[in-house]
Amino acid sequence: MISDFENILSDSSKGMKKSVIRELLKLTNKPDIISFAGGLPSPDSFPVDELKEITQEVMEKEWKKALQYGSTEGDSLLKEQLIIRARNDGMDIDEKNITITTASQQGLDLLSKIMVNRGDNVIVGLPSYVGGLGAFNAYGANIIGIQLDEEGMSAEKLENVLEDLKAKGKKPKFIYVVPDFQNPAGITMSVKRRKEIIALAHKFDVMIIEDSPYRELRFEGEVQHTIYSLDNTGQVIVLGTFSKILAPGFRIGWIIADEKFIDKIVIAKQSADLCTPPFTQRIVARYCEKGYLEKRIQKTSKMYREKKDLMIECFDKYMPNGVSWTNPEGGLFLLVTVPNYIDTDNLFDKALEKKVAFVVGSAFHCDNSGHNTMRINFSYPSKEEIVQGVKRLAEAIKEYMAECKK
Amino acid sequence: MISDFENILSDSSKGMKKSVIRELLKLTNKPDIISFAGGLPSPDSFPVDELKEITQEVMEKEWKKALQYGSTEGDSLLKEQLIIRARNDGMDIDEKNITITTASQQGLDLLSKIMVNRGDNVIVGLPSYVGGLGAFNAYGANIIGIQLDEEGMSAEKLENVLEDLKAKGKKPKFIYVVPDFQNPAGITMSVKRRKEIIALAHKFDVMIIEDSPYRELRFEGEVQHTIYSLDNTGQVIVLGTFSKILAPGFRIGWIIADEKFIDKIVIAKQSADLCTPPFTQRIVARYCEKGYLEKRIQKTSKMYREKKDLMIECFDKYMPNGVSWTNPEGGLFLLVTVPNYIDTDNLFDKALEKKVAFVVGSAFHCDNSGHNTMRINFSYPSKEEIVQGVKRLAEAIKEYMAECKK
Repeated sequence: MISDFENILSDSSKGMKKSVIRELLKLTNKPDIISFAGGLPSPDSFPVDELKEITQEVMEKEWKKALQYGSTEGDSLLKEQLIIRARNDGMDIDEKNITITTASQQGLDLLSKIMVNRGDNVIVGLPSYVGGLGAFNAYGANIIGIQLDEEGMSAEKLENVLEDLKAKGKKPKFIYVVPDFQNPAGITMSVKRRKEIIALAHKFDVMIIEDSPYRELRFEGEVQHTIYSLDNTGQVIVLGTFSKILAPGFRIGWIIADEKFIDKIVIAKQSADLCTPPFTQRIVARYCEKGYLEKRIQKTSKMYREKKDLMIECFDKYMPNGVSWTNPEGGLFLLVTVPNYIDTDNLFDKALEKKVAFVVGSAFHCDNSGHNTMRINFSYPSKEEIVQGVKRLAEAIKEYMAECKK
Repeated sequence: MISDFENILSDSSKGMKKSVIRELLKLTNKPDIISFAGGLPSPDSFPVDELKEITQEVMEKEWKKALQYGSTEGDSLLKEQLIIRARNDGMDIDEKNITITTASQQGLDLLSKIMVNRGDNVIVGLPSYVGGLGAFNAYGANIIGIQLDEEGMSAEKLENVLEDLKAKGKKPKFIYVVPDFQNPAGITMSVKRRKEIIALAHKFDVMIIEDSPYRELRFEGEVQHTIYSLDNTGQVIVLGTFSKILAPGFRIGWIIADEKFIDKIVIAKQSADLCTPPFTQRIVARYCEKGYLEKRIQKTSKMYREKKDLMIECFDKYMPNGVSWTNPEGGLFLLVTVPNYIDTDNLFDKALEKKVAFVVGSAFHCDNSGHNTMRINFSYPSKEEIVQGVKRLAEAIKEYMAECKK
């Protein structure tokens, strides 16, 4: 073995942190623990019978293509299906504006790879998706967090930060937003706010990354235009994924962007993994082509809405005073806020004793704030687990509060 | 759109080149062209019936796991199977020494990510696998090529380069070798040479990356010990893949290394794509578990041997004087050398007119040498195409030679 292991590591590797969530998931995988920690879709949302049918058809008729290497850009049938869906969602795109990725985590990685030099500034929400933070961090980005309000990322605070950077002769590489049912806050950005963010992006000449994995899992309220369609000048890059609307086990996502970005992304992907599995791409393409996806999304949204409603009901019923939570119009998560004197990093251990788990809020905050928040998932646990788990969590919080008052 | 696209790109992206091979493949995809260019396995090597059976079983019995998110480290059943296979191949490893990757191209990417800072030296063969060069290049590595001789990478030349670097106070991050049926040279490194390379790695305190995608596709001659097993001190990292022995469409590979490296690789993979598709991992795991793989490898090796023998026969028969070629004991490729006055970059156009394609040798040479060589694939074309294609290639070379003599 070499004499000095640390010295062989890249600066990038030295700065990388283990994903808090993926480490937490290991702790919470025990069968007697009710886990609200993961971001896993419900297995009941997987269309097993339809996928059996399609998988067999692909193996019968298209195995030569599905088992072989594919193009880096992705399966053309899958891209066709995604273009139809994007157009139905108001995005005026064609084949040169889209590429397939090994789920949207790879999208985040590739965008960082083509844009971020070590020390470059990027802007995210406070809180923000932890996988985004992980990808930007791996490329040595200096991550600046902007507080969310009830309409999404604060435009005022964003403008202040952009002004400040400009005064220092700096420009961030991009503004990263999750506009629909944000993970973890559950907030959907208003159209007004979307337009304000676009105006700022134009004023300060900065790209926007619109990451929207939950967009189609809407329970109520009106669909908001994508930031991409409101901009329509090529200044927005969209990340999408089948992980939440079909199945994460296929690892299929996509990027929609101006042609110039797509070209660079494809080159970066060539050396990252050559291509996303042609086998799973073709299964997903046929699934969409048969018109199964839209019906499935409706079913899944209905199921998650019921779970979310039940969870809110239980929070209303069991939580002590001083605890508040978001009530999202869609997605997979609630963000829960506890009194300032509670640090959810510590509450986590007590919750684990009570056999219930969540993700600590600090994981979503690039500035190590958010210690009085936690993310709660309602898509994966069963209804029984939701009731039981919220009771346990309420008990843990009450005990913690009581101890603090001693 | 932002005002200055070039300015938003990372240094990494500015330095990335499109893969010559993947661009060539687009040119050579036309149905009337006989392509010796790709590195594609034969569709006849895909075990369609067995995979149909297993895919159905996975969808019947294990869909909950296969369609869900999986651990970054990979499917534990698949790792078990790979550990058994590695031990049978003389490598003393356990679960902490292995992780699954989205095929071995991701292995190359992740190893670069955790080790290479821009400007760091890495050592490769002349010639060398083009996907390796692409991955190292994407991280800004300074790539140093060492000539191969008939036993593999020249130990003498390697020592000189390591001495030179040492004199300058520098140490390369790793030595990258493809010891079995090297792509593109077809050369298998002798055990003596493997030991010499290990001795140099120890003397100069440098890691070795042993990339061995074709190892099990041996037609004749004796199996050589892996460099990993000859070293056994943790100074060697092994890259493996199912792409050539089962099917590239699943995108499943693995890395075997000292625990310290595996830990860093897993963290890097978390932000790169979270996990390799659990769906295809489970299919491959069950395929191995049923004992199908070893029989399939035998069949495929037999088929490729026949194709290779036929190709050599055709080269003997049709090629003009002055052309030479390797006769590999396994793998997918011949390396063909033409007289120095021929540049295969130019020959390529003439070959394309004759409806036959290859990969230009310069693509495999980090120092832009090798212009009088080309890589010829024999696994993908049918026997008829091999005969016809070699005739066409010989004609193209003869015409080129005649023109040069005018």
